[in-house]
Amino acid sequence: MESRRATLRLMSTLDFWFEFASSYSYPAAMRIDALAAGAGVTVRWRPFLLAPVFKAQQGWEDSPFNMYPAKGRYMWRDLERICAAQGLPFVKPTVFPQNTLVAARVALVALKQGWGEDFCRGIFSAEFGHGRDIGETFAVADVINALGRNPDEVIDESRLQENKDALRAETEQALRLDIFGSPSFITGDGELFWGNDRLEAALAWAQR
Amino acid sequence: MESRRATLRLMSTLDFWFEFASSYSYPAAMRIDALAAGAGVTVRWRPFLLAPVFKAQQGWEDSPFNMYPAKGRYMWRDLERICAAQGLPFVKPTVFPQNTLVAARVALVALKQGWGEDFCRGIFSAEFGHGRDIGETFAVADVINALGRNPDEVIDESRLQENKDALRAETEQALRLDIFGSPSFITGDGELFWGNDRLEAALAWAQR
Repeated sequence: MESRRATLRLMSTLDFWFEFASSYSYPAAMRIDALAAGAGVTVRWRPFLLAPVFKAQQGWEDSPFNMYPAKGRYMWRDLERICAAQGLPFVKPTVFPQNTLVAARVALVALKQGWGEDFCRGIFSAEFGHGRDIGETFAVADVINALGRNPDEVIDESRLQENKDALRAETEQALRLDIFGSPSFITGDGELFWGNDRLEAALAWAQR
Repeated sequence: MESRRATLRLMSTLDFWFEFASSYSYPAAMRIDALAAGAGVTVRWRPFLLAPVFKAQQGWEDSPFNMYPAKGRYMWRDLERICAAQGLPFVKPTVFPQNTLVAARVALVALKQGWGEDFCRGIFSAEFGHGRDIGETFAVADVINALGRNPDEVIDESRLQENKDALRAETEQALRLDIFGSPSFITGDGELFWGNDRLEAALAWAQR
């Protein structure tokens, strides 16, 4: 019985769906691995593009934090408080939301090669910890370089049709899963949790 | 020093701004007093009308949970999980959002008379714990009656021009405070927190 329970525990997974442009996905990305390890849950990092989801689900052409200024002012202040509580650097980027196509395509390549989680954290840190515009390909290259990889090779590979198609397929899958924002967490039995503030609840559900 | 600290503690307050139609305000209303008592924070219950705020701040004529179906499906499931975790009854009301004008006006009268918090919890319980339509005046009367008050007298008083004006003034004040949703919490030093899931953070801030 004990060993069966231990096996089930090892098998519980949580899909972490995120978009690099999403502000609240930054603190989620920076804390998910430590929390999941403590809970005995395996995390699958699933980058996708939020813009097509926003458009299809909500008819939005921009971030709701730009469309609704009071909500936007609140979000930046709230994020600042959350980062302070989490001990994370925070610099409000001058560009928001950012063009994350290059970063998301590279993330798929990096995840396939086993260094994707570090890359994703590097992108989020550059964007929200240092205020950089990761829509610039050279900013993405800096993150790749800091991880000891060859930016030209990696970015070339990320531009292969197969990889572009893979990102499109992930975004379509997010829509099929009824995802409407980032970060979203989906447990092995299909339970959806939305928002950095639901990470603990998602991990607890995954553990059941 | 100890006694000075004790005095400052007694003085810290948190304004709890809420709209009876707001689903996530139900678990917040049911837990705020116990949490605040534990934190040594005094809560001021501030009912307001969210519809004029949604319209002014976001141009919305309906609940975002109706406008955006994927978000709406998620919210009801999320609320169900939260109520289960909190040991609260939950019945999805057939009418959403509900017309809360009568309930909000009565709440101001009841709060002035010192039984307002029980009344507010009673309304939230009827609406989201038992699925009743509190837009019906007789449903509001039932809540008043259950608290040992005279519904006719109370509802008559709630319809006085002075009380109608007071509710309008509160709603205008919410807008001036940059509130864009419910529940919202504002500390004595003006820090805004939005959402049932920010209640703990708001109380911690109020305690500082």
